[in-house]
Amino acid sequence: MKKSINFSPIGVIHTPFKDKSGMPIQPPGAAGVKGRIELLPEFQDGLKDLDGFSHIIVLFHFNKSKGYNLQISPFLEDDIHGVFAVRAPKRPNPIGLSIVKLDKIEDNIIYIDNPDMLDGTPVLDIKPYISDFDSYPDSTSGWQEKHKGKVHKKKSDSRFLSNNYTSDG
Amino acid sequence: MKKSINFSPIGVIHTPFKDKSGMPIQPPGAAGVKGRIELLPEFQDGLKDLDGFSHIIVLFHFNKSKGYNLQISPFLEDDIHGVFAVRAPKRPNPIGLSIVKLDKIEDNIIYIDNPDMLDGTPVLDIKPYISDFDSYPDSTSGWQEKHKGKVHKKKSDSRFLSNNYTSDG
Repeated sequence: MKKSINFSPIGVIHTPFKDKSGMPIQPPGAAGVKGRIELLPEFQDGLKDLDGFSHIIVLFHFNKSKGYNLQISPFLEDDIHGVFAVRAPKRPNPIGLSIVKLDKIEDNIIYIDNPDMLDGTPVLDIKPYISDFDSYPDSTSGWQEKHKGKVHKKKSDSRFLSNNYTSDG
Repeated sequence: MKKSINFSPIGVIHTPFKDKSGMPIQPPGAAGVKGRIELLPEFQDGLKDLDGFSHIIVLFHFNKSKGYNLQISPFLEDDIHGVFAVRAPKRPNPIGLSIVKLDKIEDNIIYIDNPDMLDGTPVLDIKPYISDFDSYPDSTSGWQEKHKGKVHKKKSDSRFLSNNYTSDG
């Protein structure tokens, strides 16, 4: 198995969140917030027809995240869970995933609603959200189940600040 | 912006798909197929409580994918779309994303239903699928809308074989 895989950012995300304080937890916690992805101009032609989709999948680099623990206490509760059972930024490969609402696209700028990333976050990939492949409304969510809906109201707390840097928690 | 980001595989996916011929298009096209993720033993402790989730998000490396075009004709139709408006494997950063059903976990082995990846695909990250964050059943899917449900029946075709290597199309 190849030991190292190299990627390069294709753009950068701009949001109102300049630091970790009071950040939303996932896009549902960022209602009313506006952001934009500035794609590097060389990739602009790759956006053709993306504007037909209401939601997009953004893969990004948790570039402020250093190190990880295999088991952590995530935001929302004190219990300990495996890193692959939480959405926290400190992961073996710190790749973030957020599904955000697409507002509009102008040239190489993608305007998005409810971004939950830190300002300046590097983007790795953008994919169309396709409900046929991606929507499982009846899925069950383990330890997260008892917190359903809470994320809409909550912001990051001090524990979140010390453990994480953005809202993929 | 940092120019290069390095990741290392955390495990490997095993599926019945030894080559591109007749591969399913996304997990809904792989009904009845079984697969497994062999996580490197050093990461096993990170799986704690993942078994409470019915679905997991698998991020993987399209390691057989070389190069990309900014606009392509995806599987399912002849029209040309931007690479960021399709799920094809040939992308600026060839990261694949599939949402698969979790069957069971034994030690460092995650048994999954409906995998749509090639056998031997390197895994980059595993995240719990949380419907609160990830399920948008009412989202609209642009050019893909007219193909709704088709993917359940279709397999890769010759165009798919020449353009892509796995089923994220």
